[in-house]
Amino acid sequence: MSEDYRSMWQLLGLNLEAHDALLNVLGKAYQEIFLAQKDRPQGMAYFDFVMSEVHGLRIKELLDEKAAGRKIIGTYCVFVPEEIVLAANATLVGLCSGADFAMEEVEKCLPRNTCALIKSSFGFKLGKVCPYLESADMIVGENTCDGKKKAYESLKGLVENLYVMDLPQVKSEQGRALLKAEYQRFRAALEDLSGVAVTTASLKQAIRTVNAKRAAIHRLSSLRKADPAPISGLDALLANQVFFYDAPLRFTKSMNAICDELEARIAEKKGVFPQKTPRILVSGCPQAVPNWKLPFVVETAGAVIVGEESCVGERGTRNLTDESGETLEEMLEAIVDRYFRVDCAIFTPNPERLEHIQEMVAAYHADGVIHYGLQFCQPYLMESMPVEKALEEQGIPCLRVETDYSMEDVGQLKTRIEAFIEQLR
Amino acid sequence: MSEDYRSMWQLLGLNLEAHDALLNVLGKAYQEIFLAQKDRPQGMAYFDFVMSEVHGLRIKELLDEKAAGRKIIGTYCVFVPEEIVLAANATLVGLCSGADFAMEEVEKCLPRNTCALIKSSFGFKLGKVCPYLESADMIVGENTCDGKKKAYESLKGLVENLYVMDLPQVKSEQGRALLKAEYQRFRAALEDLSGVAVTTASLKQAIRTVNAKRAAIHRLSSLRKADPAPISGLDALLANQVFFYDAPLRFTKSMNAICDELEARIAEKKGVFPQKTPRILVSGCPQAVPNWKLPFVVETAGAVIVGEESCVGERGTRNLTDESGETLEEMLEAIVDRYFRVDCAIFTPNPERLEHIQEMVAAYHADGVIHYGLQFCQPYLMESMPVEKALEEQGIPCLRVETDYSMEDVGQLKTRIEAFIEQLR
Repeated sequence: MSEDYRSMWQLLGLNLEAHDALLNVLGKAYQEIFLAQKDRPQGMAYFDFVMSEVHGLRIKELLDEKAAGRKIIGTYCVFVPEEIVLAANATLVGLCSGADFAMEEVEKCLPRNTCALIKSSFGFKLGKVCPYLESADMIVGENTCDGKKKAYESLKGLVENLYVMDLPQVKSEQGRALLKAEYQRFRAALEDLSGVAVTTASLKQAIRTVNAKRAAIHRLSSLRKADPAPISGLDALLANQVFFYDAPLRFTKSMNAICDELEARIAEKKGVFPQKTPRILVSGCPQAVPNWKLPFVVETAGAVIVGEESCVGERGTRNLTDESGETLEEMLEAIVDRYFRVDCAIFTPNPERLEHIQEMVAAYHADGVIHYGLQFCQPYLMESMPVEKALEEQGIPCLRVETDYSMEDVGQLKTRIEAFIEQLR
Repeated sequence: MSEDYRSMWQLLGLNLEAHDALLNVLGKAYQEIFLAQKDRPQGMAYFDFVMSEVHGLRIKELLDEKAAGRKIIGTYCVFVPEEIVLAANATLVGLCSGADFAMEEVEKCLPRNTCALIKSSFGFKLGKVCPYLESADMIVGENTCDGKKKAYESLKGLVENLYVMDLPQVKSEQGRALLKAEYQRFRAALEDLSGVAVTTASLKQAIRTVNAKRAAIHRLSSLRKADPAPISGLDALLANQVFFYDAPLRFTKSMNAICDELEARIAEKKGVFPQKTPRILVSGCPQAVPNWKLPFVVETAGAVIVGEESCVGERGTRNLTDESGETLEEMLEAIVDRYFRVDCAIFTPNPERLEHIQEMVAAYHADGVIHYGLQFCQPYLMESMPVEKALEEQGIPCLRVETDYSMEDVGQLKTRIEAFIEQLR
């Protein structure tokens, strides 16, 4: 990394020593997990570059945007509507929450029995190693699970610019009204922050931009139906992760370039794993950068991941926002409709999620499902039991995995996953 | 227990063998924990009788009410408004959830990392040992914490008559509107079930009945301010527990009789513990029958509990419903106002709870606070850390306890609690 970046990080208030250590670990893990893969699509070079510059060039771009008067909005959740953010002359970025950091400090603020994702978001703040968090003009929390909802009360003491969005728990008329009211309040807060009013033109353009990004990811997903799989689950997950913080137009373009290459591969029957490799759908909790443990274990155990039923995956990206609205009100309604369909386990009941898992198993020709649960994530762990039961009743093998961000259980996971894959052959 | 009860339990579908075992354990625990106490108020004989007949006479009364056309409504939460239940010609009873039962069966439905209270409610159903649950015409679940919210999805497969009430997470205008809409929907569901419309007269009477019950408990609480304490924390907790399922008018009368006796005791400076015994406020998760572990440990370690900041305690009972409403709409508004003030940790933020703990410490002259957290209860465990910090900043000693319903940690708890009490002397 250049000296420019070091002074940039220093100005952001990062702990340079800890941050160096983080980047070293990250770089090494990326080498071992991603670069060591065989027959990767050439287009992944773009994502390799993005990852190598994840705390460098991308942060510089964000700071340049800030200097030009644009605002940066940090988020931990797919319920924060990027359309409204873009339309208010701001940029949305996902915040770091995929690795354990400063755990001793974290456990002074949060109970030990808190899920790794939440602990991680505190660790990146307390350890001063997340340049996205430090660049953000507004950090958006949201009342999804109890863990996050209550943790934001403590996060408020650690950051000055926390904005908390309420969310419904039931897909009722009242629930939709709450989501709409909250999106209206969010729009007003963004307009206040940026000093730029959301207009019909800016919102229409923003809806198109975000839809294009989603459509590119849908194209990638669709290509993963092929056997042999033209891209690994690890690389596809990475694309879904980068979705959260790359510049939208550039992401869309790069994603489509990879898809062109994958189409050519499919025509040649060329894949990253041999034909008839057992095909896995991963379903459950989000996997944020650099939480690559599960797909690494799966894909080095002789299977290929063909889809992610996850916030970092189809749950987060699958629906487009209707583009036909002409007034602000119509467009806002379309946005509310789009996000209200997200089948997160915070909703009760949440039958759409099971239906979607079944649809994905069929569409991607998956041989089995691995349910990925973060320890102490009550909503997904609770759903995992009826999901497993329903899938197995339909003859779809399912393995429930409960883990965190530590590497201590890798051996045990590997043993269980290998046995599961054996059963699929 | 008489043969009448056995045939009654059989008709309710209880597992008689398991139920006998439960009653034996319960009777033995009651003997050792309650009856072994010295200098108990004579009025506690009423509660001793109630407890000895907890699955007998009270169930017979409920079945007699059912035979006379009244409906029985089972609840797990203080957000279910008893006023509306009574006004619709129905009786509200708390459902069993204070002991581990049929845990092997429970862990086939719920993750191991689920709080003991939720697991217990499943255990009583799966083990077929809760005559209240089996007598109920409607079982009301409510979207409080993630654990309960998602568990009710599974409970729906185990009971035929589950009704789920949605609840807000934020004390906003939208949140209050949701609570009101949900109480209106609940009223309609009750009217449908009972065939009896809620009228201004029946609702007015119901508000008075429930307020009188609360006022009697307030009177008891107020008498606990005296030193020496005229009643043990165990006995006061028992009164708060019986509050949930006794016949309201009889409960009020019996409670007031005990209060008369306690007033005489206070005049004579007579107490259950010597003057200057360290005084503890317990704050946190509810303690349902027969979850008497914590107060038993505290009061056999040389301290007296002078208040419960808990659903089974002041959080559940402290506010009265305004009685001045003349129309159904006015009365419903008053009910919504009353319940919307409950400072449960499911709300975010929830500053009223900390204020209430501080008020209770002052009012009851507590020397310290024990924060009682059920393991895996995210909302209360999350709040326990800022609560402890705030109390200690004000010089109020605080001990955070995290436990479940097992007896395995009694020794460890005793050691920690004794050390804490020592610090208060």
